[in-house]
Amino acid sequence: MTDKAKKTALILIEYQNDFANPNGALYEAVKPVMDANHMLDNTKDLLAKARALGVKVLFCPITFTSDYHELSPNPFGILKGIIEKQAFQKETWGAEIIDILPIRETDIVIEGKRGLSAFYSTNLDFILRQLGIETVAVAGFLTNCCVESTLRTAYEKGFDTISLTDCTAATSQEEQDFSISKNFPMFSRPLLYKDFLNELENGQRTDTSGGGYA
Amino acid sequence: MTDKAKKTALILIEYQNDFANPNGALYEAVKPVMDANHMLDNTKDLLAKARALGVKVLFCPITFTSDYHELSPNPFGILKGIIEKQAFQKETWGAEIIDILPIRETDIVIEGKRGLSAFYSTNLDFILRQLGIETVAVAGFLTNCCVESTLRTAYEKGFDTISLTDCTAATSQEEQDFSISKNFPMFSRPLLYKDFLNELENGQRTDTSGGGYA
Amino acid sequence: MTDKAKKTALILIEYQNDFANPNGALYEAVKPVMDANHMLDNTKDLLAKARALGVKVLFCPITFTSDYHELSPNPFGILKGIIEKQAFQKETWGAEIIDILPIRETDIVIEGKRGLSAFYSTNLDFILRQLGIETVAVAGFLTNCCVESTLRTAYEKGFDTISLTDCTAATSQEEQDFSISKNFPMFSRPLLYKDFLNELENGQRTDTSGGGYA
Amino acid sequence: MTDKAKKTALILIEYQNDFANPNGALYEAVKPVMDANHMLDNTKDLLAKARALGVKVLFCPITFTSDYHELSPNPFGILKGIIEKQAFQKETWGAEIIDILPIRETDIVIEGKRGLSAFYSTNLDFILRQLGIETVAVAGFLTNCCVESTLRTAYEKGFDTISLTDCTAATSQEEQDFSISKNFPMFSRPLLYKDFLNELENGQRTDTSGGGYA
Repeated sequence: MTDKAKKTALILIEYQNDFANPNGALYEAVKPVMDANHMLDNTKDLLAKARALGVKVLFCPITFTSDYHELSPNPFGILKGIIEKQAFQKETWGAEIIDILPIRETDIVIEGKRGLSAFYSTNLDFILRQLGIETVAVAGFLTNCCVESTLRTAYEKGFDTISLTDCTAATSQEEQDFSISKNFPMFSRPLLYKDFLNELENGQRTDTSGGGYA
Repeated sequence: MTDKAKKTALILIEYQNDFANPNGALYEAVKPVMDANHMLDNTKDLLAKARALGVKVLFCPITFTSDYHELSPNPFGILKGIIEKQAFQKETWGAEIIDILPIRETDIVIEGKRGLSAFYSTNLDFILRQLGIETVAVAGFLTNCCVESTLRTAYEKGFDTISLTDCTAATSQEEQDFSISKNFPMFSRPLLYKDFLNELENGQRTDTSGGGYA
Repeated sequence: MTDKAKKTALILIEYQNDFANPNGALYEAVKPVMDANHMLDNTKDLLAKARALGVKVLFCPITFTSDYHELSPNPFGILKGIIEKQAFQKETWGAEIIDILPIRETDIVIEGKRGLSAFYSTNLDFILRQLGIETVAVAGFLTNCCVESTLRTAYEKGFDTISLTDCTAATSQEEQDFSISKNFPMFSRPLLYKDFLNELENGQRTDTSGGGYA
Repeated sequence: MTDKAKKTALILIEYQNDFANPNGALYEAVKPVMDANHMLDNTKDLLAKARALGVKVLFCPITFTSDYHELSPNPFGILKGIIEKQAFQKETWGAEIIDILPIRETDIVIEGKRGLSAFYSTNLDFILRQLGIETVAVAGFLTNCCVESTLRTAYEKGFDTISLTDCTAATSQEEQDFSISKNFPMFSRPLLYKDFLNELENGQRTDTSGGGYA
């Protein structure tokens, strides 16, 4: 286990049946991008190799009560869409982490996620600080929604923030491509997952162009 | 249901077996104050009457994995004490909400609590904002630890913050009395639970002395 | 002054010389979009009319010490770009709010902004809560950087969140268009500024398509 | 400069004329405790020696507009007291840092403080993360109000948190003594300032009793 790996966390956002299983409520919306970049196969490989290097693994599912009574009676935006699709209901199959990424005893399942950023309504920051994590690498769904909000927050919180570009999926190729090329460089270092693993093994930090005013 | 009640939340902190049941890991520490102010009977009565008035009920348990691996390997302060007492382990009896305060379908169980303030590592703020809550009334354990941190945060977040003084318990009468008389007035309106219920019924806001520089 | 206007805040992000004045360090980067959508003229008109309706005005400048010593010695992303451009140095002309939007005594100048979201390192949330604000309308720079981060946070914090699309600018038309059409609907109601003013006057809430999984 | 000192921040809370100068609005309230424990002399000595060791110095003043229009029109608790005393008005003498603790170019003045915790409405957390700070030592006013709220938050945020007991003052000796003996050990390591300096010099971490359930 490298010293760098011990201070690195892999944050897996919403790898739940409703997104990633063919029978999931939102699967059809993300299927084209998942098929194009093989994000599920990539994530499975990433997870095995990151574990072997000693990286801390944190699953960040999103869940709601069955009638969404913890949400506003007048929702708008993405939360309204989740209610309409009746997705991510606690203790149902749709909210479970997908079988191909089994949770281990030593992993951490982050609690509380309701909104966009995996930091905002959860114990993610608390636990990362307890564990002395300095680098966070983020994968999952949706590239330009929860993944991006999580990256933006991680950057503000001073983490060395990595976006694992081929382990994310959006609801269109346009959104996938735009997010990675235009937005992610402003608040993360976008890396293919194999480059992230290389960085962990050889200890060299890949610099990426800063984005923004170049 | 009064309009004020609809915008009020009752926040019940750590009414779990490890604190409030005679077989709980920390029961002996809080028993003297609980016996002196009847905080469990008071809370039971409060809960029934607040529900009847339409107040939103939120339970805030604290839980940890069985080996506390989400905490620092070098803990200090109150978290160290919790580990030493092996308290609040998830999915064990000690972490369950006490039988005398049964959770209803329409209640909300706040997720994620690990530290002191019920706001900090949880979805409490997210949900209070979704529900349009303006007033929070706080009860539970420990008066000068988690209850006080929660009050301090609620005050900063702009809630009309009420400390339900006879529905809290500390590990000594000295701490109980000091917190209520000296600290709570700086960042909450300390009220007996019956005065809080009166306020909900008659709609009149009881002013309390500000504390601090008087 | 309508009741709705009293609970609405106009959040003006980084209307500072370094962005919006022809001699500013980053002006050239945003000029094409500003020219195309007339965002400065629009904002001037918006500000006058919003004030007249009783909307609370909050300026959110970003500033740094002259040697940026409060930032990491190894910056990356957008903060690295700001340092390279030597922009937004406190008590210099570049950091001043532009002349065409004079600050009034009754306005509020938000303090502390260093990162992306106007909420994260500032007293914005504290003050909005103190003032009982329920709706926030966001304008300024950059559409897909600080404006978007601010919108994302405001949505998580339960505000009715409005993006004033013709009062924002990005460093390219592609980014401007993408943000407004694809990202903003997930966490805000994108409105032209005149539609926002209409909403304040007639009290009717314009519904927008939710975005996301449609 | 020791490696530990480089990762340590000294957080100086509200060393402003309104508290610490004989002509300040709140001076009389804190004078008895300041006289008893020599907190101003201690802080002056601490500051000189901590600087020499390479500790980062952050001043956290609290300020308000001259009519407090960023606060609720119906204040309660400690903020109400501040308004009544007309204290800490921006750009007035009362809000200035006291002369005996001159600010240096390399120090950081935290912006935004309005409430209790120096973390909540400010850029303190952002800057501590940027600078890679792991240990925070807190001094200032009031022991059981802003100092304590800051300690509580720092503990939740995973910092090694030190309360500098003889560099704090409350409005009564009872509050001073209670806070230090009963509350501070739950969420900080209470140290005399000379013991803190020793720790920085010899690199050994003084363990303190955990507090809570002992």
